[in-house]
Amino acid sequence: MLDRSAVIRLFTTVRQRSETLCETLQPEDFVIQTMEDVSPAKWHIAHTSWFFEQVILHTYESNFAPVNETYFWLFNSYYESFGGRIVRSDRGTISRPTIPEVMSYRTAVTERMLKLLESCDDASWETVRNLTILGCHHEEQHQELFLTDIKHVFAASPLYPALVIRNSTTAATSPPATKMISFSGGTKSVGHEGGGFSWDNEHPRHDQLVADFKLANHPVTNREWLAFIDDGGYSDHRYWLSDGWAWVQENQIIAPLYWHREDDQWMTMTLSGRMPIDLNEPVAHISYYEAWAYARWAGKRLPTEFEWETAAAAQGDRCQCGTMMDDRIYHPVAKAHDSADESTLHSLFGDVWEWTNSAYLPYPGYRQAADALGEYNGKFMSGQMVLRGGSCATPRAHIRSTYRNFFQPEKRWQFTGLRLADDD
Amino acid sequence: MLDRSAVIRLFTTVRQRSETLCETLQPEDFVIQTMEDVSPAKWHIAHTSWFFEQVILHTYESNFAPVNETYFWLFNSYYESFGGRIVRSDRGTISRPTIPEVMSYRTAVTERMLKLLESCDDASWETVRNLTILGCHHEEQHQELFLTDIKHVFAASPLYPALVIRNSTTAATSPPATKMISFSGGTKSVGHEGGGFSWDNEHPRHDQLVADFKLANHPVTNREWLAFIDDGGYSDHRYWLSDGWAWVQENQIIAPLYWHREDDQWMTMTLSGRMPIDLNEPVAHISYYEAWAYARWAGKRLPTEFEWETAAAAQGDRCQCGTMMDDRIYHPVAKAHDSADESTLHSLFGDVWEWTNSAYLPYPGYRQAADALGEYNGKFMSGQMVLRGGSCATPRAHIRSTYRNFFQPEKRWQFTGLRLADDD
Amino acid sequence: MLDRSAVIRLFTTVRQRSETLCETLQPEDFVIQTMEDVSPAKWHIAHTSWFFEQVILHTYESNFAPVNETYFWLFNSYYESFGGRIVRSDRGTISRPTIPEVMSYRTAVTERMLKLLESCDDASWETVRNLTILGCHHEEQHQELFLTDIKHVFAASPLYPALVIRNSTTAATSPPATKMISFSGGTKSVGHEGGGFSWDNEHPRHDQLVADFKLANHPVTNREWLAFIDDGGYSDHRYWLSDGWAWVQENQIIAPLYWHREDDQWMTMTLSGRMPIDLNEPVAHISYYEAWAYARWAGKRLPTEFEWETAAAAQGDRCQCGTMMDDRIYHPVAKAHDSADESTLHSLFGDVWEWTNSAYLPYPGYRQAADALGEYNGKFMSGQMVLRGGSCATPRAHIRSTYRNFFQPEKRWQFTGLRLADDD
Amino acid sequence: MLDRSAVIRLFTTVRQRSETLCETLQPEDFVIQTMEDVSPAKWHIAHTSWFFEQVILHTYESNFAPVNETYFWLFNSYYESFGGRIVRSDRGTISRPTIPEVMSYRTAVTERMLKLLESCDDASWETVRNLTILGCHHEEQHQELFLTDIKHVFAASPLYPALVIRNSTTAATSPPATKMISFSGGTKSVGHEGGGFSWDNEHPRHDQLVADFKLANHPVTNREWLAFIDDGGYSDHRYWLSDGWAWVQENQIIAPLYWHREDDQWMTMTLSGRMPIDLNEPVAHISYYEAWAYARWAGKRLPTEFEWETAAAAQGDRCQCGTMMDDRIYHPVAKAHDSADESTLHSLFGDVWEWTNSAYLPYPGYRQAADALGEYNGKFMSGQMVLRGGSCATPRAHIRSTYRNFFQPEKRWQFTGLRLADDD
Repeated sequence: MLDRSAVIRLFTTVRQRSETLCETLQPEDFVIQTMEDVSPAKWHIAHTSWFFEQVILHTYESNFAPVNETYFWLFNSYYESFGGRIVRSDRGTISRPTIPEVMSYRTAVTERMLKLLESCDDASWETVRNLTILGCHHEEQHQELFLTDIKHVFAASPLYPALVIRNSTTAATSPPATKMISFSGGTKSVGHEGGGFSWDNEHPRHDQLVADFKLANHPVTNREWLAFIDDGGYSDHRYWLSDGWAWVQENQIIAPLYWHREDDQWMTMTLSGRMPIDLNEPVAHISYYEAWAYARWAGKRLPTEFEWETAAAAQGDRCQCGTMMDDRIYHPVAKAHDSADESTLHSLFGDVWEWTNSAYLPYPGYRQAADALGEYNGKFMSGQMVLRGGSCATPRAHIRSTYRNFFQPEKRWQFTGLRLADDD
Repeated sequence: MLDRSAVIRLFTTVRQRSETLCETLQPEDFVIQTMEDVSPAKWHIAHTSWFFEQVILHTYESNFAPVNETYFWLFNSYYESFGGRIVRSDRGTISRPTIPEVMSYRTAVTERMLKLLESCDDASWETVRNLTILGCHHEEQHQELFLTDIKHVFAASPLYPALVIRNSTTAATSPPATKMISFSGGTKSVGHEGGGFSWDNEHPRHDQLVADFKLANHPVTNREWLAFIDDGGYSDHRYWLSDGWAWVQENQIIAPLYWHREDDQWMTMTLSGRMPIDLNEPVAHISYYEAWAYARWAGKRLPTEFEWETAAAAQGDRCQCGTMMDDRIYHPVAKAHDSADESTLHSLFGDVWEWTNSAYLPYPGYRQAADALGEYNGKFMSGQMVLRGGSCATPRAHIRSTYRNFFQPEKRWQFTGLRLADDD
Repeated sequence: MLDRSAVIRLFTTVRQRSETLCETLQPEDFVIQTMEDVSPAKWHIAHTSWFFEQVILHTYESNFAPVNETYFWLFNSYYESFGGRIVRSDRGTISRPTIPEVMSYRTAVTERMLKLLESCDDASWETVRNLTILGCHHEEQHQELFLTDIKHVFAASPLYPALVIRNSTTAATSPPATKMISFSGGTKSVGHEGGGFSWDNEHPRHDQLVADFKLANHPVTNREWLAFIDDGGYSDHRYWLSDGWAWVQENQIIAPLYWHREDDQWMTMTLSGRMPIDLNEPVAHISYYEAWAYARWAGKRLPTEFEWETAAAAQGDRCQCGTMMDDRIYHPVAKAHDSADESTLHSLFGDVWEWTNSAYLPYPGYRQAADALGEYNGKFMSGQMVLRGGSCATPRAHIRSTYRNFFQPEKRWQFTGLRLADDD
Repeated sequence: MLDRSAVIRLFTTVRQRSETLCETLQPEDFVIQTMEDVSPAKWHIAHTSWFFEQVILHTYESNFAPVNETYFWLFNSYYESFGGRIVRSDRGTISRPTIPEVMSYRTAVTERMLKLLESCDDASWETVRNLTILGCHHEEQHQELFLTDIKHVFAASPLYPALVIRNSTTAATSPPATKMISFSGGTKSVGHEGGGFSWDNEHPRHDQLVADFKLANHPVTNREWLAFIDDGGYSDHRYWLSDGWAWVQENQIIAPLYWHREDDQWMTMTLSGRMPIDLNEPVAHISYYEAWAYARWAGKRLPTEFEWETAAAAQGDRCQCGTMMDDRIYHPVAKAHDSADESTLHSLFGDVWEWTNSAYLPYPGYRQAADALGEYNGKFMSGQMVLRGGSCATPRAHIRSTYRNFFQPEKRWQFTGLRLADDD
């Protein structure tokens, strides 16, 4: 367990990283919400402070007084237990407080938290420590959302702004020849073992029967995805789930999110501005429906989350880690591709979240906590599919092989891709 | 395997039963569609004939000529492979063909099918037999939909018409005292074994690890549901999934579908007209969201589909069968309740479909067929939850312990209820 | 003023005519509602009876008892003063009461009305007489709606049923060469003079200043409309009002309602089934937006309602009356076209309602009555445009030169057309 | 006609005034769009520059080169003739260009316009002059929208920011006792006479017959509006147009826009922050539906636009001018109220736009221009009602007695109020 200084170090690091993400933003960039899923950058910066104020300071700081009563309402996300909140789709209607005011809110919370972490008595330390660690992991999740959300905002402007300037050395290298790697089935233990932080939805660790299966040695690339497009994949109902086919037709989907055809070239939006598609990169910004259709078109299928976790456990340290937030590229440039090494799971972590064919449901024996933090994961176990492995927008320290991410099957604004699986 | 005369007998019986369901309908009842999920009775009668014409006669009848070309478009449901079709929500806009015209279409198809069943050569017999059996099971599914749909139609009229007159002896008897029956876990074989008809989604039979669990000896009753209502169950966010809570608030849900408060009495619509709630009956017409909330309120949970199937296998013939379509009551009067017998799974079959906490996903090794019938089940494996056990509107011969029904979590117009489960 | 026998004769005639309209309908045709504007035929038959029961019998029949309490709710249209009513878009969800039950309701009301008309005392006679006459005109309006609504219902079925068999002698004859007839302006009296029935919205008769103007000698024909289509009229923003252009694009409008291109031929739905466009007929089923765009394309404009009424008054008996409901053709076959007579306003009455460029607003000094019948016209004086002249679905006795019909600018399911006007 | 120096002076003054409006805004305030009707402040600042660049510089500047090609698309409002444009409801999704970039665009356009105004040859001077004057009046309209839009934006934040600090001396004074002033009818000339700038929709000046009428000596005040509320005005269908009643119910309207009940006090949002209702002020932010309902409740009616113009002409200089943009209060504080003077039309100009009962339609003989500027007014002559007199957000130089403003009947975010009329 982390001691006080380690917790303070973690807290300081995480808080600092959020602020670093803001460095190149203009004030106008902070307030815009381009769709309901997207939150303004300002909101992320404030909400991650609200979390510490509401969950920790409010209870554990002596003589607590709120920075601003209104912020409880403005910066609550979905916690019914914490009372009312702004309608989600209205987050982009709020010009005030301004960025400087929000930054000063942020600083106040950081300072008061640091004081508490240093001074709180031993009786409450364990709880304060655990909540602080949880708040840091919560903030890391919002760092990823900060990036995917500002990408969506930047993509709305025909000026295609950049968050970071991309170094020319960061181009994706060619993946190895595609190979389906075999894994033995059997009774497999899945879920978190304890030791280090984990979310409640990774518990309890338990056994699952997994049949022999195969998993591709790299995520599907843009090159492969173009073959699907060129083969009429988006216009042939036979490849699609019924819901997926309705979604394709209603939204006239013909390519991943952010792809636009310009003359003979597919272009895409990146956090370094608009660029031509790089064929070596893993495909990103696809929905579960698209992932599923691609797999069916390819004569394969998506893995279950248990197969994925089994494979990760089997390869252990050999799994290669692709681009992550720490690289500050914010694009899946597949730095883990080693074209000579066909028998490794390249980019298993990082680059793109990988859609699985598992619904996001509780593990056997899971019990949702009764307090406000019980709302964190349990109440979302409906209508979503599990993704594994983290992306180029995930902090390296945040991801692990038991980590369960989850989104509705039509969502595409995250860095979402796929890795093919098959029966063995 | 059924021989020709058995197939003919099955076909004749099933076709006849659909027509029997129409006996008390007026022409005006046949054409109405009260919501997108509901199809007009006329459409069910025609579509089940279309199925035989399109899937069998079209290929296996020599010198096939359609009864009416237009019907291919009018009475196709969702088969992309069979071409265009009327928009689902427009099924209630079609006054012509009239009922007599549709009945005459039906008769023509029946006669031509019988002729084919009697005369087709041995080379095609096996396929024709299998498709005919499948077509009969397809028609049985529409018989259940016929009943739930006409109930929705009748509920729209303030005159509250009845499909059948209820005999006074059919009142529900008191269930036994509620008891959670324990079942041992372990590696359990689930899915269909072969022998007799089954759907592709019940295959392949495979092993699942199931932990020790408990299952209630009867479905949740109206009496129990009223306690949930009276305890504020519909207005306390803590019991609800996030999607469920949004659904409750957006639709102002305060009770199961068809329940209306009249002075101090809850009334409900039945296929014998409007009646007061019978406290002994299993609660029906609830969504997955409501089932989930009730279970959380009760400190229990929903079973997985594998627990359910394990329990059904363990009790075997001791499982009691509640009201089914064959009883011609079309209401869950819980005839299987035996208040003295606490250790049996009452109403495991019949009365109400039981929501499980399993998403409708393929069994390991499942492969969707490439032809039109591949569209039957596989393409719907997204966004739906599994229900087990059949209802008062299911033909007895149609249900079995491996049968997987599936609906979106907000759907309520089927006879859907729940049975509590718990860890052991 | 009509005496008792004349009122009884009027009442009997009108009631009979509604029933005649039903003669060729099948029961299935009576219950369908294809869009919110459309009411099921059954509803028209019942509502016109409800009107007499609610407005007259309820007050003036001694010992009044309702035929069925529920009908007050089911068959009220929009009268807030008469209490609740079924949501308009739900009229097509009601299978019961059946047609025979509704017909028997109708008969009961007719009989009780006749008894009242014969026997009511002199003190209440004047009111009963006036309300009965108003109820007859109300029923005539619903006769027109009955026809336009059943046309919309029939058009939904790919079998294209017919209400009447069209006699081959009813084809439209060629209109005279188009000529803009000049009318002198000045201070013109408009509105109803009194004598005979009129609606409150035709009052008070008052003066309007009208400048010299011209009016076309016949409504725009399908031949002329095709020139507009062929000239790209539907895809050139310059011809359209801003609202009209948005409407065209959102609804992908490319032709009048009911027109479909089949190979090289424009087909249209009629109440005698589907037919090729007849170039000599007035164009029908166009919105105000389309009428306006056509006029701008043609370098002309729409007349105001005062110009229209001034022209009708100026030509008096010379105005020719086109097809009307009494002809039982229910299609604008332009029987008034006399190709040799260029100086007459052909089809000024009948064939198609003519959109004017006047908003439906009160005449100076108009006061809406305080009772329920005040809801008849006054509360609709917002957001609608005035149409004049009646159509092939209007009873001859119903129309007059001061009659103001009104619809929202996007509505097309009535027999709506246009006549060009210009400054002189 | 204005000479070069006068045009330059006008242009400079108007451009400067827009920039003055921005003085107290924070960057975050500039980009937000709270509903489709509202445009971000940044957009107004840019669009008014686009107008001069697109309409004048593009044609009349030699060697024209656009400041930024993308701006043609980003800052076009609704001119189909000028090509594509951003979807209106997406104006609030654009973070870049930033405010400094937009300001620099603005400066560039101003400078190039000044250069053109000084140097353009005599051949094109007349057109350039007229377009420049028109562009200035266009910009004045956007100044008013700037204010009403930023008010809507500020009202979304629970911090209720202020644009200007209100001086305590600006409170409304008591209006005179309400008196209906009589005006004689007759043949009245309405519309613009020429001389000075006017919009095409004020032409041609023509005669209208107006009956004797009365007009209230002041707009309806908050005190009077509260009486309407307290008398149940918002919940009694008898006062409402049918469309209005549907609007009230669907949107649960119970008071003017921006009014909120706080304990026993009605509060409202102003451009100086949130304040209690001032009973002496004219009621503002009401829809046409509300104005109409109030008038019916009061036993009066709304004036026609011709009555309004007739009264303005009759009183001439005696009409009093209320608060206008030039006062920099941006709230209808009714500075024209003189409680001792009952026979003057107080606040006829300024304070609040006054809904009339006239639909926005062309004057007899009006012809919409064929070029892009023809889109300015003519294509909106559908579905809107005329308002007269200007508001506290209108520049004094912008308004005149023939000025026709127009909005859809449900719109409320402008400073809209009403003045009662009656027959004499």
